[in-house]
Amino acid sequence: MMEGVSQEAASLAGHLQLSNLCWIYDSNHVTIDGDTSISLSEDTLKRFEAYGWHTIEVKDANDIGAVRAALEEFKRTEGKPTFILVHSIIGYGAPKAQGTNDAHGEGISHDDLVAAKKFYGWPLDKTFYVPEEVRQHFAGGIGQRGRQLHGAWSQLAQKYNEQNSELGRQLMQMQKRELPDGWDKDFPKFEADEKGVATRESSAKVLEILGHNVPWLVGGAADLVKSTKTILKGEGTMSPTETGRNVNFGIREHAMGSVTNGLAVSNMRAFDSTFLIFSDYMRNPIRLSSLMELPVIHIFTHDSIGVGEDGPTHQPVEQIGSLRMIPGMLVLRPADANEVVESWRVIMAQTHHPVCLILSRQNLPTFDRTQYAPASGVAKGAYIMRDSEGGEPQVILIATGSEVQLIVNAQKELEGKGVRARVVSMPSWELFMKQDDAYRDSVLPPSVKARVSVEQASTMGWHQWVGMGGATIGMTTFGSSAPLKDLLTKYGFTTDKIAEAAISQIALNAKQG
Amino acid sequence: MMEGVSQEAASLAGHLQLSNLCWIYDSNHVTIDGDTSISLSEDTLKRFEAYGWHTIEVKDANDIGAVRAALEEFKRTEGKPTFILVHSIIGYGAPKAQGTNDAHGEGISHDDLVAAKKFYGWPLDKTFYVPEEVRQHFAGGIGQRGRQLHGAWSQLAQKYNEQNSELGRQLMQMQKRELPDGWDKDFPKFEADEKGVATRESSAKVLEILGHNVPWLVGGAADLVKSTKTILKGEGTMSPTETGRNVNFGIREHAMGSVTNGLAVSNMRAFDSTFLIFSDYMRNPIRLSSLMELPVIHIFTHDSIGVGEDGPTHQPVEQIGSLRMIPGMLVLRPADANEVVESWRVIMAQTHHPVCLILSRQNLPTFDRTQYAPASGVAKGAYIMRDSEGGEPQVILIATGSEVQLIVNAQKELEGKGVRARVVSMPSWELFMKQDDAYRDSVLPPSVKARVSVEQASTMGWHQWVGMGGATIGMTTFGSSAPLKDLLTKYGFTTDKIAEAAISQIALNAKQG
Repeated sequence: MMEGVSQEAASLAGHLQLSNLCWIYDSNHVTIDGDTSISLSEDTLKRFEAYGWHTIEVKDANDIGAVRAALEEFKRTEGKPTFILVHSIIGYGAPKAQGTNDAHGEGISHDDLVAAKKFYGWPLDKTFYVPEEVRQHFAGGIGQRGRQLHGAWSQLAQKYNEQNSELGRQLMQMQKRELPDGWDKDFPKFEADEKGVATRESSAKVLEILGHNVPWLVGGAADLVKSTKTILKGEGTMSPTETGRNVNFGIREHAMGSVTNGLAVSNMRAFDSTFLIFSDYMRNPIRLSSLMELPVIHIFTHDSIGVGEDGPTHQPVEQIGSLRMIPGMLVLRPADANEVVESWRVIMAQTHHPVCLILSRQNLPTFDRTQYAPASGVAKGAYIMRDSEGGEPQVILIATGSEVQLIVNAQKELEGKGVRARVVSMPSWELFMKQDDAYRDSVLPPSVKARVSVEQASTMGWHQWVGMGGATIGMTTFGSSAPLKDLLTKYGFTTDKIAEAAISQIALNAKQG
Repeated sequence: MMEGVSQEAASLAGHLQLSNLCWIYDSNHVTIDGDTSISLSEDTLKRFEAYGWHTIEVKDANDIGAVRAALEEFKRTEGKPTFILVHSIIGYGAPKAQGTNDAHGEGISHDDLVAAKKFYGWPLDKTFYVPEEVRQHFAGGIGQRGRQLHGAWSQLAQKYNEQNSELGRQLMQMQKRELPDGWDKDFPKFEADEKGVATRESSAKVLEILGHNVPWLVGGAADLVKSTKTILKGEGTMSPTETGRNVNFGIREHAMGSVTNGLAVSNMRAFDSTFLIFSDYMRNPIRLSSLMELPVIHIFTHDSIGVGEDGPTHQPVEQIGSLRMIPGMLVLRPADANEVVESWRVIMAQTHHPVCLILSRQNLPTFDRTQYAPASGVAKGAYIMRDSEGGEPQVILIATGSEVQLIVNAQKELEGKGVRARVVSMPSWELFMKQDDAYRDSVLPPSVKARVSVEQASTMGWHQWVGMGGATIGMTTFGSSAPLKDLLTKYGFTTDKIAEAAISQIALNAKQG
């Protein structure tokens, strides 16, 4: 009740008038550190009324009739979610612990436990004891009820599947986390274009098609949908009166991530989106999406100092790396429109891993794939986009996302100086780590120790790919508010600096032999 | 108003009855994505009443008299903070943009701007124009008032300093971010002890002394103070009726971090504390403490799979690395009680960098410093705790915090096998990076390429210290719920595994020559 996410989720549920939702607040008047009065004075019932919830107060948790009546009232309530505040006594029946925070944190002493057993009329010599009538109640009553309900549900589902063959088949596919046939039909192919397009824009084009092809794709943004470009076009909006697949989460990132996790548990393909910097507000649900092995799609745009004038509060530095650190998380930062398309193939193929798709605000050139390796290399995490001509590379240039264009240009500049450089686009560390040694060594041959990485983010972690002595061009401070052009110069993201670093690397490694 | 932190902060302010606090809610009925009605239906006035705030509604932002009356009402209000909801029209006067979300996100068109100038009776040909009467109002009225108020304040402060020489001196020190004389007197020195003590416990002992020595040290925990051990003993608790220096933040991490930033802006030395895993809830204020160059102290305990049975939801993996990635942030993970003492020396010396102090839940042995290098090496970020005997090391073992004991034992095991290993304790990457090349090369000589890092956290980033081919023993998955002993075996944090990795490293590097 104190955590901010309670506000975000309850406010959204009230807005959407989710009458199937009921929260039961076990108000036992203690927190870990003491009585709630040391840190909480709010009128919680009034707070939930303010959110538009129906509220019920149960004075005594031990009054089973009152609890049952409250639940019946919830079932009858329409047009709003229900909040049941139940006053309870923690450790009830244990004379010393009851009503105190020690009952939560410290547990109940042996003497107090014996006293509690006496209070309940429980056999004093039993531990981990299940009375016979409880066993019977579960075996006969609850077990039987469950079997009946499950049987009825299975019959209903079978009947539905027979009568609605296509929808039934889709329902089965969805529940198995499979994709519908033709899920990727009409995927775009982008022509070479020097001016290019922002990856948030090319992603929007793919998402629009996926919205048509995958009927159980659902998601939205935290009040930034016009900027993250994550609208399912032609689909409606979720509201109290409509069941569209576009969700206006409001400025509620933490709740947004929690809701998409919930949607994914129901086997919907769910996505959320906001600016990359605001992923910090939803670290917990992002982590949980991975811990729960849910194929949630987190779309984060405005991914670097590329946001320019908005300045350091809005310029991510540590976010990309922090997301890569979450176990099981797949992070993809495509370099151009065609890498975006291939990223979406990877994303949709996931069944047990969430993905963070990191996209640019600014335009990125669409590479001429007749001159560069095909973007399908994305599936392997890293690939040689263009190798050196006239012999083995002397240096390897590695970049992700918006910085790939810089190493492409640096390669040309180095060629002009007679230096052989290899260009590696590395949209995903995690996918690359999953490849076998042979493939990885073919992209990053151990013999070529001169290496330069370029990414507009914290350099931490890049030494894994460029070695302890390798050059890492990235952010080691917060950014600044200025036009991107000036920031690129200020922070060394220029073709010249990259070429310089490459030449230094070659010299350094020649010296060390 | 939608972000969760608004709930956390407002609920805490209501609880503390902060009558000097006033929030003005510019309720213009739009968010970036549209009218607020697409995502917000709550009764915000009622919500703030529920928090225990005094609420005022101003129907029209252009009614200056009503706004002034509301502010006067705030000044008169005692025993509770004040919330003023002001209904406004965004883009007021620009006929097309006004009242729409475009006025926020898209700006106002030229035609609309001209129409707005007409509406206001403004000269149509002027841009960036300051009318003469505004200039005069600022120069004469506002400027004069400011000079007078500042003069009166300076006189008052001077008078106070003269009359209260000691308190006045302390106030000056505090404002200059200096420490009081004798701030570190009575700092403990811990004797060698194999059973040892949890670093959260040894930190508690230092904090208790600092509470006495530094009168402007203030802080608390997010309802975990008995676990994080961050009580200033003998000091009171902040409450509506008391001005103690211990703060019960409640289960409100995001607000806690925001409040400590605010306290630090006032030049108090402020600390917050919770379990390391919950630092995820407060990523934004942690980042801001660094961006704002505030010497805030973030104390995070229960720092690894060391929490054992609580399981993966409570076992940090990516948190330490994610904190290290924040520019300007100092992360310290001491290995024993004496490294904790030295860490606090580093922490208190900061004037413009926040610190994350990462502490264990479980006991850690206190090393016998007659056998090992003194803990004062903490100040350099990493130091040779014990070197190999009988010649140059063949391999370097590097660890932080609770894993230093493992490499200490591995060194002994390797010695038994005739292998020369160096033990490096590395409590802080950032401090080590600040040292000159000579020192860094003396601790990690470039010639010794066989290296093993051990840290119960994501291995990402460690290749910077052990090289691309170095061994990184750490977490590559989430943890599990089990006694720590079993987890150490499961995840390879054993002396045997470390010794094995060390021998492999030596072989690998001998082969590569």
